[in-house]
Amino acid sequence: MRIFGHIDGIPVGASFLDRRALLEAGVHRQLQAGIAGSATEGADSIVVSGGYEDDDDFGDLIIYTGQGGNDPATKRQVADQQLTLGNAALAESCRKGLPVRVIRGRNPDSAYAPPRGFRYDGLYYVEEYWQAQGKPGISNWRFRLISQERRPTPEAVEPGPASRVATTVQRLVRSTAVVQRVKELHSYACQVCGSAIDVRGGWYAEGAHIRPLGHPHDGPDVLANVLCLCPNDHVRFDFGAIWLDDDLCVVDGLLLEIGRRLRTVAGHEVALAHVRYHRELWQGRYPAPRQPAGVVSSELG
Amino acid sequence: MRIFGHIDGIPVGASFLDRRALLEAGVHRQLQAGIAGSATEGADSIVVSGGYEDDDDFGDLIIYTGQGGNDPATKRQVADQQLTLGNAALAESCRKGLPVRVIRGRNPDSAYAPPRGFRYDGLYYVEEYWQAQGKPGISNWRFRLISQERRPTPEAVEPGPASRVATTVQRLVRSTAVVQRVKELHSYACQVCGSAIDVRGGWYAEGAHIRPLGHPHDGPDVLANVLCLCPNDHVRFDFGAIWLDDDLCVVDGLLLEIGRRLRTVAGHEVALAHVRYHRELWQGRYPAPRQPAGVVSSELG
Repeated sequence: MRIFGHIDGIPVGASFLDRRALLEAGVHRQLQAGIAGSATEGADSIVVSGGYEDDDDFGDLIIYTGQGGNDPATKRQVADQQLTLGNAALAESCRKGLPVRVIRGRNPDSAYAPPRGFRYDGLYYVEEYWQAQGKPGISNWRFRLISQERRPTPEAVEPGPASRVATTVQRLVRSTAVVQRVKELHSYACQVCGSAIDVRGGWYAEGAHIRPLGHPHDGPDVLANVLCLCPNDHVRFDFGAIWLDDDLCVVDGLLLEIGRRLRTVAGHEVALAHVRYHRELWQGRYPAPRQPAGVVSSELG
Repeated sequence: MRIFGHIDGIPVGASFLDRRALLEAGVHRQLQAGIAGSATEGADSIVVSGGYEDDDDFGDLIIYTGQGGNDPATKRQVADQQLTLGNAALAESCRKGLPVRVIRGRNPDSAYAPPRGFRYDGLYYVEEYWQAQGKPGISNWRFRLISQERRPTPEAVEPGPASRVATTVQRLVRSTAVVQRVKELHSYACQVCGSAIDVRGGWYAEGAHIRPLGHPHDGPDVLANVLCLCPNDHVRFDFGAIWLDDDLCVVDGLLLEIGRRLRTVAGHEVALAHVRYHRELWQGRYPAPRQPAGVVSSELG
């Protein structure tokens, strides 16, 4: 059975001589692959060892590059990474909110790597994943992992041990003053489907940053970078199941069908640069079919 | 302008002689009322002073009782509290994820109250609100407030100050092993609307504890207490916009209309006791209209 979380008897900070020792301890049950897991269950552990030059390790925050696309002989990357195998497992961990054991290997270029061998560095959560340019013309999958120390621990707020349940955070919806303003401008109606969630005594909507906040995207928290969405369309947007074309029509990222135009209101214009940034995170190398501009404008409203 | 968050120059722990001093410092801009805010903007501050015998103060966690229903002459509660005025403001803070300044007043019965006067105790978030029995036959609104210290601070995970944006957490979706199991049993299809959110490479659903986890509800983390819901219906369920009747039909909490029966699968039965607990949180004193059992069973499936 795949274990998500700590392995009994292995404290955070435990050292291992080599990959075989990691395997035998059950900390990382793969001898070669950096990601252990399955696409249906999720990833239970990863090894961060500087194998990809574009992994970015900030300690509590890791921008991890997926696997695949390598020539078996030369080990050089020659093709796009696919959202399969270990990459699909990490994506599933993100959707489920499962913890991932992080093991760091020796890496003289990283301030966070152990001086030798491997070290178990505790649990991280995959907050986000997206497709990004790696080598020229080749796309990778990237995963933003946050240390559990920096994540909420909902069970810790309960008084008394009886009610404590081991929960993890599957999704965390952020808000800012700008997000509030956007929701008010749209009267809490989703810009994709038009629905507003009617809850007792008020309305519920979420603000979605088009170009995401935070490293490595560093999207700005401004009106032009925020959409007012219902929770369902927010999930679809954040996971790349929908994106926007340059006419602000909503594209189904799975069928690549162009749907109706984003609902807009006076006083809230989104910036095309952010729309394109988000699209390029998800669209990858698959060009979305384009409708002639005339057809699109007849669909306005 | 109403300020949500700290007041410049007032550190956490600051002491105030009386309510007028709090008002003049801008920390709590109401001389009498315990809740300062508006139903459209949210509540910016509350005073916890033991005025209601059923406030429960656990320090980082406060179960706060709303206002209203009192006889002006005797100050005794004689009627149900309504989701209006300060109560509506706190509910709006919950939906928006806005921080609320908490001020504690002297209260010999509370380990967390100051010995005299009033003390500014920092920012809290309204995680949840519901209707509960107060005195016999009278219902109150209650609010679960969590200290910011116990809440995630998303901005703290960004490396470098340039990308820091003051964000708050509007919504936090928890998961557990049981929640995972329920989602798998339902193949990620929402038990209310039947939709599954198709995201690139997988499916997304959320687990909703029928009787909520954590104090004061202390719902169990078991299959019989969890529903598989899409994010929109999860929001509706958690805010009492929908609940279930004893035939597991979905009741619109606003129109009190009985809709179709909850979708069920073999191996996952929900417990009526939890269904009733959730309903009683929200249904309050309004009896839902009942359909004859024969009509309900013809709607099965």
